[in-house]
Amino acid sequence: MLSITRLDIDDAHLLIKGARNKANEIGVPMCIAITDESGNLIAFERMNGGKTHSISIAQDKAFTAGAARKATHDYNAANVPGSLAFGIDTECGGRISSVGGGIPVVVNEEFVGGIGASSGTPQQDMEVAQAGIDYFLSNR
Amino acid sequence: MLSITRLDIDDAHLLIKGARNKANEIGVPMCIAITDESGNLIAFERMNGGKTHSISIAQDKAFTAGAARKATHDYNAANVPGSLAFGIDTECGGRISSVGGGIPVVVNEEFVGGIGASSGTPQQDMEVAQAGIDYFLSNR
Amino acid sequence: MLSITRLDIDDAHLLIKGARNKANEIGVPMCIAITDESGNLIAFERMNGGKTHSISIAQDKAFTAGAARKATHDYNAANVPGSLAFGIDTECGGRISSVGGGIPVVVNEEFVGGIGASSGTPQQDMEVAQAGIDYFLSNR
Amino acid sequence: MLSITRLDIDDAHLLIKGARNKANEIGVPMCIAITDESGNLIAFERMNGGKTHSISIAQDKAFTAGAARKATHDYNAANVPGSLAFGIDTECGGRISSVGGGIPVVVNEEFVGGIGASSGTPQQDMEVAQAGIDYFLSNR
Repeated sequence: MLSITRLDIDDAHLLIKGARNKANEIGVPMCIAITDESGNLIAFERMNGGKTHSISIAQDKAFTAGAARKATHDYNAANVPGSLAFGIDTECGGRISSVGGGIPVVVNEEFVGGIGASSGTPQQDMEVAQAGIDYFLSNR
Repeated sequence: MLSITRLDIDDAHLLIKGARNKANEIGVPMCIAITDESGNLIAFERMNGGKTHSISIAQDKAFTAGAARKATHDYNAANVPGSLAFGIDTECGGRISSVGGGIPVVVNEEFVGGIGASSGTPQQDMEVAQAGIDYFLSNR
Repeated sequence: MLSITRLDIDDAHLLIKGARNKANEIGVPMCIAITDESGNLIAFERMNGGKTHSISIAQDKAFTAGAARKATHDYNAANVPGSLAFGIDTECGGRISSVGGGIPVVVNEEFVGGIGASSGTPQQDMEVAQAGIDYFLSNR
Repeated sequence: MLSITRLDIDDAHLLIKGARNKANEIGVPMCIAITDESGNLIAFERMNGGKTHSISIAQDKAFTAGAARKATHDYNAANVPGSLAFGIDTECGGRISSVGGGIPVVVNEEFVGGIGASSGTPQQDMEVAQAGIDYFLSNR
């Protein structure tokens, strides 16, 4: 039998809070999604003004980060013509995201979930996702 | 131009809080989803112990309630062989739910969104969704 | 080679106009879709107040009516347990509709397209779709 | 509660009319789609001779422009290998379009919807979509 460690709902709220704070700080309302280590959604929030297409994108980024244990910007770097990973973004019915803004959550060297942010530029989304992780790691 | 009124993220948090309280009270951890008046997701929470298949179901119930302005148990009553609405549950790529647990949110006689709950029996899901609405209406 | 007769865009506008008039008369804003004899969309209109889930449903009804050359209420009658057609509503990725409100358009005994209406009861949707056909046949 | 401003059906008809006029002028029949600020379809027209694959493409472009508040040609510029947004076109089940021809509609600095055109070259589609917006802004 396996024993799995994963984010709980309070962890997810901390992650969202840290991301929301950063999104407010930079003035870009976002969609923020948190998944567990299997890529399944734990919590989601669309801030007032967050874009509707980002509802899916934030979840896809969090799914990718949580399930693949890889940041979407790392997939981005690999998703170039000639790379053996090229085309990875069409997998899982297109749910694999190679757009920056999805980052795995690691605790005690274990992958326990993922966070995804969307509505800004990929750089802004990455900044907001990272802020969620930083806040979580400092306050859990 | 049209002017539309919809739930904001604070409203969504109130709806989730009321639903979560009831789910805790009856001892059935749930997935709870809140959509706006167009059926687009505003907030989602999977309580610790909520079922993973309910991630989609709660969202589909909230989509149905918000977009169709109809409780999923009302669709349930209409979705019987011989009724002219039979088969409605396969529409919108299967996102229309005729399983009890999705209820529209009405403020000042306007449809402003929907709530969906899933993980218990349909009756439990309905009770939890209604508790979310009751809490929201009393505390907003 | 085949020669196909199908609705053109002016025909589609007449069909929508007749349906819209009836929807206004009964006070139920609708989504109205017109397809050609292959089931492909020609025109669509969401009246102010039409429901967002009906965007798909109206199109599915028109697709079914146009492509299957059959009213969705006829599929409804056949879509009962024990009937050999039972389950037809899940075909084509769920796009086959067995909910009343989709009617084929017939001119000179040829099937030339379909109309679908959604947002009311199935009976209202059927009434609105039929009004579109009646108006079209009288004014083309 | 949030208060949202979006295109109504008369606005949508003006947008389509302006786009259709330009499509006729350049002799390229098109599919033209109009969405609201959430990306949901308000109106659609396939001109006589418009291509059937464009039924989806025009709608996807309008969805992208309306929901993401961004022109599809701007996504096109960002959707290149090595850019952090590369792969954005596979998101939302492939509904995000990075093909020119989708443009958001802005009124009084508010994003109120989107227009998408398809059947010509991307440049022609962009020209037709822009003509729809220009006509709408001059005649509403």
